[in-house]
Amino acid sequence: VHKIPVGVLGASGYAGRELCGLVAAHPRLSLAFATANERRGERVRVGGAGGADVTFVATDDARLDEAELVFSALPHGASAVWVDRARAAGARVVDLSADLRPGNQPAASADAHGGTAVATQAPYGLTELTRDQLPGAEMVANPGCYATAILIAIAPLVSRGLALPGATINVTAASGVTGAGFTPRHDLLFAEVAEDFRAYGAGNVHRHLAEMRATIATLGGDQDLIFTPHLLPVARGILATITVPVAELPDDALAPWREHYAGEPFVEVVDAQPTLREVVRRNVVRLTAVPVAGVRQPTLLVTAAIDNLVKGAAGQALQNANVVLGLDEPMGLPA
Amino acid sequence: VHKIPVGVLGASGYAGRELCGLVAAHPRLSLAFATANERRGERVRVGGAGGADVTFVATDDARLDEAELVFSALPHGASAVWVDRARAAGARVVDLSADLRPGNQPAASADAHGGTAVATQAPYGLTELTRDQLPGAEMVANPGCYATAILIAIAPLVSRGLALPGATINVTAASGVTGAGFTPRHDLLFAEVAEDFRAYGAGNVHRHLAEMRATIATLGGDQDLIFTPHLLPVARGILATITVPVAELPDDALAPWREHYAGEPFVEVVDAQPTLREVVRRNVVRLTAVPVAGVRQPTLLVTAAIDNLVKGAAGQALQNANVVLGLDEPMGLPA
Amino acid sequence: VHKIPVGVLGASGYAGRELCGLVAAHPRLSLAFATANERRGERVRVGGAGGADVTFVATDDARLDEAELVFSALPHGASAVWVDRARAAGARVVDLSADLRPGNQPAASADAHGGTAVATQAPYGLTELTRDQLPGAEMVANPGCYATAILIAIAPLVSRGLALPGATINVTAASGVTGAGFTPRHDLLFAEVAEDFRAYGAGNVHRHLAEMRATIATLGGDQDLIFTPHLLPVARGILATITVPVAELPDDALAPWREHYAGEPFVEVVDAQPTLREVVRRNVVRLTAVPVAGVRQPTLLVTAAIDNLVKGAAGQALQNANVVLGLDEPMGLPA
Amino acid sequence: VHKIPVGVLGASGYAGRELCGLVAAHPRLSLAFATANERRGERVRVGGAGGADVTFVATDDARLDEAELVFSALPHGASAVWVDRARAAGARVVDLSADLRPGNQPAASADAHGGTAVATQAPYGLTELTRDQLPGAEMVANPGCYATAILIAIAPLVSRGLALPGATINVTAASGVTGAGFTPRHDLLFAEVAEDFRAYGAGNVHRHLAEMRATIATLGGDQDLIFTPHLLPVARGILATITVPVAELPDDALAPWREHYAGEPFVEVVDAQPTLREVVRRNVVRLTAVPVAGVRQPTLLVTAAIDNLVKGAAGQALQNANVVLGLDEPMGLPA
Repeated sequence: VHKIPVGVLGASGYAGRELCGLVAAHPRLSLAFATANERRGERVRVGGAGGADVTFVATDDARLDEAELVFSALPHGASAVWVDRARAAGARVVDLSADLRPGNQPAASADAHGGTAVATQAPYGLTELTRDQLPGAEMVANPGCYATAILIAIAPLVSRGLALPGATINVTAASGVTGAGFTPRHDLLFAEVAEDFRAYGAGNVHRHLAEMRATIATLGGDQDLIFTPHLLPVARGILATITVPVAELPDDALAPWREHYAGEPFVEVVDAQPTLREVVRRNVVRLTAVPVAGVRQPTLLVTAAIDNLVKGAAGQALQNANVVLGLDEPMGLPA
Repeated sequence: VHKIPVGVLGASGYAGRELCGLVAAHPRLSLAFATANERRGERVRVGGAGGADVTFVATDDARLDEAELVFSALPHGASAVWVDRARAAGARVVDLSADLRPGNQPAASADAHGGTAVATQAPYGLTELTRDQLPGAEMVANPGCYATAILIAIAPLVSRGLALPGATINVTAASGVTGAGFTPRHDLLFAEVAEDFRAYGAGNVHRHLAEMRATIATLGGDQDLIFTPHLLPVARGILATITVPVAELPDDALAPWREHYAGEPFVEVVDAQPTLREVVRRNVVRLTAVPVAGVRQPTLLVTAAIDNLVKGAAGQALQNANVVLGLDEPMGLPA
Repeated sequence: VHKIPVGVLGASGYAGRELCGLVAAHPRLSLAFATANERRGERVRVGGAGGADVTFVATDDARLDEAELVFSALPHGASAVWVDRARAAGARVVDLSADLRPGNQPAASADAHGGTAVATQAPYGLTELTRDQLPGAEMVANPGCYATAILIAIAPLVSRGLALPGATINVTAASGVTGAGFTPRHDLLFAEVAEDFRAYGAGNVHRHLAEMRATIATLGGDQDLIFTPHLLPVARGILATITVPVAELPDDALAPWREHYAGEPFVEVVDAQPTLREVVRRNVVRLTAVPVAGVRQPTLLVTAAIDNLVKGAAGQALQNANVVLGLDEPMGLPA
Repeated sequence: VHKIPVGVLGASGYAGRELCGLVAAHPRLSLAFATANERRGERVRVGGAGGADVTFVATDDARLDEAELVFSALPHGASAVWVDRARAAGARVVDLSADLRPGNQPAASADAHGGTAVATQAPYGLTELTRDQLPGAEMVANPGCYATAILIAIAPLVSRGLALPGATINVTAASGVTGAGFTPRHDLLFAEVAEDFRAYGAGNVHRHLAEMRATIATLGGDQDLIFTPHLLPVARGILATITVPVAELPDDALAPWREHYAGEPFVEVVDAQPTLREVVRRNVVRLTAVPVAGVRQPTLLVTAAIDNLVKGAAGQALQNANVVLGLDEPMGLPA
């Protein structure tokens, strides 16, 4: 079987390594290069049971022209310029940074390299919602991890007009520590995170709000969004807890999701509360909804769990790449 | 110094042991008895550096008449009858169960023993808010752990008329595992809880809602309340994340709390997001508030952290007992 | 492809569920039944990405005659009688309990049912060391989790005469909590295990000593063994830290293992210290060895890591079953 | 009450902050300064319930002459020169680094500043064993955390001639992550440490071996020592698991320790296996011993637990300072 060569820029972080592991186990892709400037020359094990050993090269040494598709897991702000370079070298790009996402301000580093112009043309790769824009796309903006869980959870209510117009959708979410990346920081040390829990980005200032608001608008909604993320003492996983005011409560609380996601291999609509253990290392959004009792405003409580490194990053990036490249969408993805 | 004898019913659970430890280190209280039916005869270490060894007796063997005050940490439903017995023996009672709390349905076991009648007379021991009802009280309903964090957090907005009338106060909260008690259950095993996170009591059905709604009404508010608790992979601590729609945003977001709790030794109003590590093993509520950006309805985000076993249970029970008995309120309490 | 029907007795514990998950993902096996008396009728998800839903039946309702091979993950003492029943029904058996293991006293419950006689005939299924006894075996004693890590680690030194005769092999090992099973116990609650660490079975009294001593003798060694297990605040994994006095230090500390396990797919001999994260959810023993500096008696320090539920239980059981049934040994096993 | 001014050099690390917290709560000491170059000007909370706010100053700005005693929690190698400077300014010094400990090679940085000469004169502050050398000492070498647990555990056997001459004392120990310090490192991130366990310093090369060997010799022993440390997914605590070959087993396994440490407030000789939870935030060594069954060489298994930041660092430093300054030894120490 011919394997399609793909490359990974920024491969030493959590998302980058996850991606390398998925590529290594993919039946139709091969890893052309994996870059990590500070760890160039290092050989590391990626992936689980079907993983492989990968040797990092410097980003400048990546043979962009040898890859048909390049994943960029470079930091926000640093990614857009490499998206341009990869495209100039003839590769398609799935960008895991925020640089190409809708609603984002053009990144400063992108400005200087002409990244802005192309950025505005990148489809948003929340695959279940934007699948038809992806085949053959030259570049894709991979969604933020929180945005993935939240938008999959609210899209059926917003796009079908069930969410109350003008109301406020209220989201608290908690993420495992890998969501903050692999950079050593005091506040991410084991002895700081264990036995702790805290909110951050309080007051509605998180980076993912832009893409979530843009997507709500795209879906035809006008709701406000309050989003309060928290840091959880686990390695992986996001749980989003969402209240959505509705015009009236549906007879079957889960019906909007069951209909909207019928046949989707990576959305699990379930009766019980979703938990992180059920989704880690899997490319799924697992969600449920229940009516909120004892309040005057009819409201649904929606909860959704994902693995922030899989469906929230590397897995969804590969899902997008599969669609871009014309492969079976679920190929190589752990469901 | 004369020490006042107090007893603890249901001393082998997490709250009961915490209480025994606090009593052992208290300068003016002595432990008359500590009951634990299934572990009668066992000698255990309670408390930290200033702790002591305690030998459990059967509940039926407790010399209720030898205690001036009895703390009941018995399970919900089983406590009310013992509150009656302790009172019949001449003791004052601080009840850590839900049985005496406002808004609760009379517990079945209480009904049969006439507990209901007295229960309705018990002041609610959220000390900072109900202090004037406590001196000399014959019994006190110690608040639920979640209710403590949430009510301290929202009381200034509700009682001062800052919270928008008719609006919905939206609370998600996460608690450490000791909040679920010491009973062995599959779902509380280490290997089930570690690396996991989940909502429970979804749809606004948690036991603490009754006392929270009753207190909001007592404070003069008419707001609805949505409360979604979560189980956190930590031993101790609760963080409540709350949005409160307001008529207009105050110039200084923290002013309502600074004014309302001026001089309170156990309420910490801070600028940074409160964390569990800052409050564990301390009898404090630590909280902050920030305006929510980018929404049409002016809204404050309030976050509050407590130790569920201290300010959320044993510490507050002791704080109440200090007031009931005419001792200095902060005596023996770790701030 | 014809699938061989196999059954799992005692399927609701950690090892039993792991086994069901592996069978579900195995290309040549199908799950005939999975028993769990207390949870009969329950439908649970087993396995990870390639898992399945399984409905438990009562053990008495298991159609033993419909399985070509039965795995027993029943508790020690309760398993032997079911081994006999399964054999009487014509099935081969891989027994994950201690009941059939070498060096064990006959279990009381086995005595009454004639289990003892057969037990002494069961080959010990430490596959890498006893592979030649397994093809076509009617029953196999699956090794203990600690024993697996420790015996794989020391076998090359003992069987090749490198370990000093008459000396003491000193082992401390630490296991994740799933090693203690799924039974709810106070001491296994999250709030008891987190942030703790302790030895247990101190003084050389652990159940696995018998099979380890028997195997050392079988390998031609006469060394004494000190084994001190510890309970680790992790869900999965065992690390064994072993000192072996040797007649003289080899030039290449790893040579004995590289030679002994050449070509073995499930033994990883590495340069760096093995860690639990490297082995969880994989059917491998990962080990290294270094000379001990600064001591008069030449000594090697050997460290070995396994997943207690995979190579230490369900994975090895499946590895044994593959050999017994004439399938490829690594089939269906995550390496 | 007159309070004695003391200073802390290197106050922003885990041990330094713990020390500041203990000093803040000490009835006879006051904190003259707390230095932390990279965080100069920052105000942080130290200690628990009896803690305080501390503002860090640059090390160069410390008024060494205003402290009667200076604690140095500076890194190994960087501390010796500051010990000299503090002494030149007239202060006594308790040095928590390895720089002054017996058996250590003179640190390079100390050489250049004449630190070596004084270093060799510093008594070793393992208080229970060297108490008589401390009153009025100009400087004290505070022991390593592992060394504290291990030496307290083996001293009775070695110094009383019970340990077999010429034999090997075998120690494995596991430490919480704070033992590795507060420096951000990839391998100390939460997502790397959680659910993991590993040996390090394998092959008998850990820094604390020098002081342990020197102390064994001082106690009159000639035993070899094998020491293998491990990194534990907990914040605090060390458990040492030790086998000591003995000439013959004592009738009462605990007698050597009960006699040796009679009246010691900070050594707890107990029957059950000591656990980390029992010792965290306390200045104690908690230990037990049992005979090892089934081996030809009579051997005792000794296990000892400490909090690495308290009895293993800051607590013992304060215990030493109390003795040096003529205060009650247990003053201000959590037992």
